[in-house]
Amino acid sequence: MRGTVIHAPGDVRSEEVPDPRIIAPTDAIIRTVATCVCGSDLWSYRGINPVTEPTTIGHEYVGVVEEVGAGVTTVKPGQYVVGSFFASDNTCPNCRNGYQTSCLNREYFGGCQAEYVRIPQADGTLVAIPGQPSEALVPGLLAVSDVMGTGWYAAVAAEVKPGATVAVVGDGAVGLCGVIAAKELGAERIIAMSRHTDRQRLAREFGATDIVTERGDEGVKVIKEMTDGIGADSVLECVGTNESMHQALRATRPGGHVGFVGVPHDVNIPVDELFSSHVGLRGGPAPVRAFLPDLIERVWTGRINPGKVFDLTLPLAQVAEAYHAMDVRRAIKVLLQP
Amino acid sequence: MRGTVIHAPGDVRSEEVPDPRIIAPTDAIIRTVATCVCGSDLWSYRGINPVTEPTTIGHEYVGVVEEVGAGVTTVKPGQYVVGSFFASDNTCPNCRNGYQTSCLNREYFGGCQAEYVRIPQADGTLVAIPGQPSEALVPGLLAVSDVMGTGWYAAVAAEVKPGATVAVVGDGAVGLCGVIAAKELGAERIIAMSRHTDRQRLAREFGATDIVTERGDEGVKVIKEMTDGIGADSVLECVGTNESMHQALRATRPGGHVGFVGVPHDVNIPVDELFSSHVGLRGGPAPVRAFLPDLIERVWTGRINPGKVFDLTLPLAQVAEAYHAMDVRRAIKVLLQP
Repeated sequence: MRGTVIHAPGDVRSEEVPDPRIIAPTDAIIRTVATCVCGSDLWSYRGINPVTEPTTIGHEYVGVVEEVGAGVTTVKPGQYVVGSFFASDNTCPNCRNGYQTSCLNREYFGGCQAEYVRIPQADGTLVAIPGQPSEALVPGLLAVSDVMGTGWYAAVAAEVKPGATVAVVGDGAVGLCGVIAAKELGAERIIAMSRHTDRQRLAREFGATDIVTERGDEGVKVIKEMTDGIGADSVLECVGTNESMHQALRATRPGGHVGFVGVPHDVNIPVDELFSSHVGLRGGPAPVRAFLPDLIERVWTGRINPGKVFDLTLPLAQVAEAYHAMDVRRAIKVLLQP
Repeated sequence: MRGTVIHAPGDVRSEEVPDPRIIAPTDAIIRTVATCVCGSDLWSYRGINPVTEPTTIGHEYVGVVEEVGAGVTTVKPGQYVVGSFFASDNTCPNCRNGYQTSCLNREYFGGCQAEYVRIPQADGTLVAIPGQPSEALVPGLLAVSDVMGTGWYAAVAAEVKPGATVAVVGDGAVGLCGVIAAKELGAERIIAMSRHTDRQRLAREFGATDIVTERGDEGVKVIKEMTDGIGADSVLECVGTNESMHQALRATRPGGHVGFVGVPHDVNIPVDELFSSHVGLRGGPAPVRAFLPDLIERVWTGRINPGKVFDLTLPLAQVAEAYHAMDVRRAIKVLLQP
């Protein structure tokens, strides 16, 4: 089948790779309907995360179940499914607490930028949608499998409450989905920090009430001026750099909360500042699985359309071009069709 | 009047100091009925915080209002009052959010190990109790002014919920009050980490269901064994060292919360670990003022008795002995009577 292999930074290729097979009785094989490139894939593409050997890549997918192992009971061939990028049993104490990305039996599986994918622990990982989606719904369902679930978790971790003032650091797909989440959770004022006009426009469409183009301490100053001098109730940190984390912490009011979902790269948390500010901090790889039923419902009913973060669609064979377009910020997020 | 001056590490003296006077119209002068030595005073006594010049010391007090400035409206001479160690206006946005220790007009005032104390912003800072307390209630009311309020905030910041499993790192007065708070907030299991028999006994009396004597990674291992392998829902970090912070973070289950109230000294937060664990972290100087009305009520009605943390009472003149006794852990906390 056609898959995607990263050979080195900047070198992503569409290649023939072995078809996946059922290995464990709890596996399922799905035929990918749509997949995409994630901001976190760019860490390897840009050489910030090392690439030591050719590796299949991609972790976002929607598709149709082709085959299931003998132990799979909740999904069946022909069903249209969405799943998280971590496989989880959905039954262990951490899963029951809503943290499936900390499942005691969690498995990371990559290789989803491909025609077929093996999903471990299919019963725990996959959620079947109510029927066959229209073509227009596919991008939204695909977004739910990662960026929308991650933006949602950022808002939940930042304790967004009805009436709150929320700031979003990061105008990538996750940050933009964080705007959707903040709005759905009832935020009254949503400040998107962005300096790209196309992303500003989408942020406003998703519910942002204000745009701040300043960054770092300047950005913090603007947020404070907008909020009685104290800062935002909730700040979503959707980048993962030291600068973005400090910006998020300092833009939060005393006793407010930062939800951080950008995978931290050389981030140093200023503990004395964290202490004296009373700011709450919580993040991590989003337990997307916990939110899937709710988010699928919101997309299915047309209440939200996170699929708009896809501003470029390419055939899977042109995956190299997809990485390049995102790397140079010509696209926010690229949808790939096998 | 008699006050207390720290001249150098290990050198605390009871001395004649100037009587405090009303400076601002919002000030009050109180006659101290009881004061005490705080674990945080020991940071200076032990030379960990520098002592650059002779400084009056102490920040916990209960007393009777002697005199008020012309602008004071809510407390009056003769009233028995409790207050926090930070003066706050109790009206600014941060105060209204419940973070009086981040009051936009906050003032730290020390010098409370003395016969009289000037309290700035008396209307915002002081709370009058319902009447004249019996002698037996005085230690509990004094505890509320700092250690009980701080233990309470640790439990609130650690999001202690009914039915929760809670671990408390630190068996000083704050940690022991954290046990009281966890119980009052409905925790089902309260694990006190302590290796001192007198403190273990008090922890049990306050509601601890389990005692863990191991520390560091060994202590974490024991907590995990007690909690289905995942860790406690909420952990109260009441020490402030790097070791205690790491112990707290690692003893918390994925998605659980750490409340940290030990003033951090050379603490490094392992951000990758914090990220991957989904643990929420919030701390700071406790906004005691926010909790005073509720905690005074709990002490006044006999529902809690945090006054038991005082296991030694001395005349104010013997303040040097009080510091020494706490330094060598001969006493958990010393009450001083002017």
